[in-house]
Amino acid sequence: MPYELYYWDGIQGRGEFVRLALEDAGADYIDVVRENGGVAAMLAILKSKTEPLVPFAPPFLKDGDFILSHVANILLYLGPKLDLSPTSEKLRHFANGLQLTIADFVTEIHDTHHPIGVSLYYEDQREAAKARAKDFLENRLPKFFGYFERVLAQNPKGPHTMVCGTHTYVDLSIFQLIEGLQYAFPLAMTGYEADYPLLAALHRRIKMRPRIARYLESDRRQPFNEEGIFRHYPELDRLVR
Amino acid sequence: MPYELYYWDGIQGRGEFVRLALEDAGADYIDVVRENGGVAAMLAILKSKTEPLVPFAPPFLKDGDFILSHVANILLYLGPKLDLSPTSEKLRHFANGLQLTIADFVTEIHDTHHPIGVSLYYEDQREAAKARAKDFLENRLPKFFGYFERVLAQNPKGPHTMVCGTHTYVDLSIFQLIEGLQYAFPLAMTGYEADYPLLAALHRRIKMRPRIARYLESDRRQPFNEEGIFRHYPELDRLVR
Repeated sequence: MPYELYYWDGIQGRGEFVRLALEDAGADYIDVVRENGGVAAMLAILKSKTEPLVPFAPPFLKDGDFILSHVANILLYLGPKLDLSPTSEKLRHFANGLQLTIADFVTEIHDTHHPIGVSLYYEDQREAAKARAKDFLENRLPKFFGYFERVLAQNPKGPHTMVCGTHTYVDLSIFQLIEGLQYAFPLAMTGYEADYPLLAALHRRIKMRPRIARYLESDRRQPFNEEGIFRHYPELDRLVR
Repeated sequence: MPYELYYWDGIQGRGEFVRLALEDAGADYIDVVRENGGVAAMLAILKSKTEPLVPFAPPFLKDGDFILSHVANILLYLGPKLDLSPTSEKLRHFANGLQLTIADFVTEIHDTHHPIGVSLYYEDQREAAKARAKDFLENRLPKFFGYFERVLAQNPKGPHTMVCGTHTYVDLSIFQLIEGLQYAFPLAMTGYEADYPLLAALHRRIKMRPRIARYLESDRRQPFNEEGIFRHYPELDRLVR
């Protein structure tokens, strides 16, 4: 039975971190909301008055009758099944901690364009967004990137993967972060390879994985746009180096 | 060997969700930064150029040589050891998804007073904070509380616990959310019991657990203040009912 991924159609968003794992593993899955009747199916679960495992929000995954939500939790569950996790229990917790750091970073990236609230349009919070994006690019992005670069450098199995000596879902998520930030903040990301050579090498390695390369060329990969997490608003971007 | 919890001294903050689990279980642990030399010990790990399992930020836990970070990840690890997890693998993932929803809510609570950036003082972002707190109290708090209330109502084992039929770390974290919100937003929380009777009953139940009651009276429980997640700024609070 294929996995069922439930996430909004039309954006990569948080669902993309799950899609990349499913695609990299060549897993059998349905992107439910991109099929006919998919939105209704998703809302039926979200609004259910009886489902015990009701999720707060997309993305969520169905594996048979089992439902689970949150990117890091879904990847924790799928990782061993897709051969995208470290094998030891302890390193699985380390991978999960890294994925949660990525989740925090994603929230901060999102909030550069929505610092006041998700209920309001970007245009109604643009001035606050400029202040938040400035702080993000000057302080937060270097802090997160510096940390991820150190994790690579300090990996006893070598600086090519984030956890252990083999490829995991964390590496795929780092790739997506860099892709998204290059779309949203092309000025700020100019020349990032010089400061973060290990991250840049990881990004290149993932992009060349055969299934990922095919996925990126397919129409299953939706383009970045100004509805998702990573939005390109030129007024929020700036050279920081 | 006792667990070692590393978190900033002087605030409950995110560390408190871990402390409550350790205290409820009567576990042997050291709150390292509250001991002599603790800050230096924490910074040595955070700044280490060799530690493979380096965390991004506190809180993190040491269990012997093993280090893991992020509240939800720490509770996922400790839960089975402290008898605060469901027994089935699937319900452990459901509990983890709930804990991650709580983590998202905590970030939104924090951002009511820091919508522009953690690098800036509250006083330098007060106007944006007023707008964000308004949106939070009118839209986000009811959305999260409504969801948690539904999870209780839809629990097939009864509406007294969030997951399965036994007490878990998720219940302890819900207690802390309500304690914190009552401190930060006493006006907005006035009469919340009428709208969320199951949450209110859960809050009362946890408060009366013997080890929790003793902990809350001890000096290990630090008071809420305006340095933590839950801050009482009267200008951000309002009656919403």
